[in-house]
Amino acid sequence: MDTTVLQLHTGQTLVTDITSEVANFVSGKNDGLVNIFVPHATAGVALIETGSGTEPDLADALERILPVEDIYRHQHGSLGHGRDHVLPAFVSPSISIPVIDGRLALGTWQSAVLIDPNGDNPDRKVRLSFLPG
Amino acid sequence: MDTTVLQLHTGQTLVTDITSEVANFVSGKNDGLVNIFVPHATAGVALIETGSGTEPDLADALERILPVEDIYRHQHGSLGHGRDHVLPAFVSPSISIPVIDGRLALGTWQSAVLIDPNGDNPDRKVRLSFLPG
Amino acid sequence: MDTTVLQLHTGQTLVTDITSEVANFVSGKNDGLVNIFVPHATAGVALIETGSGTEPDLADALERILPVEDIYRHQHGSLGHGRDHVLPAFVSPSISIPVIDGRLALGTWQSAVLIDPNGDNPDRKVRLSFLPG
Repeated sequence: MDTTVLQLHTGQTLVTDITSEVANFVSGKNDGLVNIFVPHATAGVALIETGSGTEPDLADALERILPVEDIYRHQHGSLGHGRDHVLPAFVSPSISIPVIDGRLALGTWQSAVLIDPNGDNPDRKVRLSFLPG
Repeated sequence: MDTTVLQLHTGQTLVTDITSEVANFVSGKNDGLVNIFVPHATAGVALIETGSGTEPDLADALERILPVEDIYRHQHGSLGHGRDHVLPAFVSPSISIPVIDGRLALGTWQSAVLIDPNGDNPDRKVRLSFLPG
Repeated sequence: MDTTVLQLHTGQTLVTDITSEVANFVSGKNDGLVNIFVPHATAGVALIETGSGTEPDLADALERILPVEDIYRHQHGSLGHGRDHVLPAFVSPSISIPVIDGRLALGTWQSAVLIDPNGDNPDRKVRLSFLPG
């Protein structure tokens, strides 16, 4: 299997666009599925529009579901870190995108992003894997 | 890769059952995975029971997470359109279903559905792709 | 396709760790993707850390989104069963994990778990399928 691991510095950033890295990975391949996989217990991946306000709107929605308060049993790390551990149940760390003739079959407004609320762990890995069709 | 794009008219309908279209696509194939992919930034796909009240229950749950109010930075479109752009972070636009001997390995009560809160965009595409096992 | 069905007794337990079962299934295989699929309309699969408090934190988050109250149109089963049917829209019943040289490419703190709020149905199936890369 053609697979690689990206090394990302996310710092305190909730949403990191990785579309170009994924597009580069599949470039030159034929048809298939590319799987994006985050090997961390406090992050997920998603396909959203970036740059038009959805990043802070997502942050607000997460606050409604998983508020940054001292309400979690999971007690390691900074205030609210417990919620980071619940996030992957809702924002999966694994997503697959069809690849047609070496290009991501994304819609016009879709970008592949890492969703990482965990500022305590500023460096992240993302594994990309290509399955031929 | 065996892949096709469905053209759907969803109009103002939140939940559109596409099980029969997906079943038809995999009919006659052998074993593998079928990937359902929505190339839009304001819709997702899910596997739920249909016809027993879950559609309006889902609408209510979305209203708790993403209320239709003027609270979003994303300001294009109708009131609440900003929330449509957050939805795919929680209801992924990509899901894969095992196929056994040309049949979807769904449970008795599972239907494949498009979740589309975006009434501003009444026509939608859904890509189906078959990966042989 | 190499595929098998696990038979699990979840009883009243919300989170059931199936990492070792999935690891055993892929052991000895080469590279590829393993798909975990729950053929039920009231359960999902996720990758989370177990044993550090995230299980009850997840239960609390589900209660915020899908409270166990008499508010659902879906009226079969015990109080709150209607919410069990909405859960799979948010916690997908399908997830894929990369396999490298017969081992799950999970992060240190990731466990594969069944999320099953439905105490009315104590016995569950989970299908594992391996796609070669």
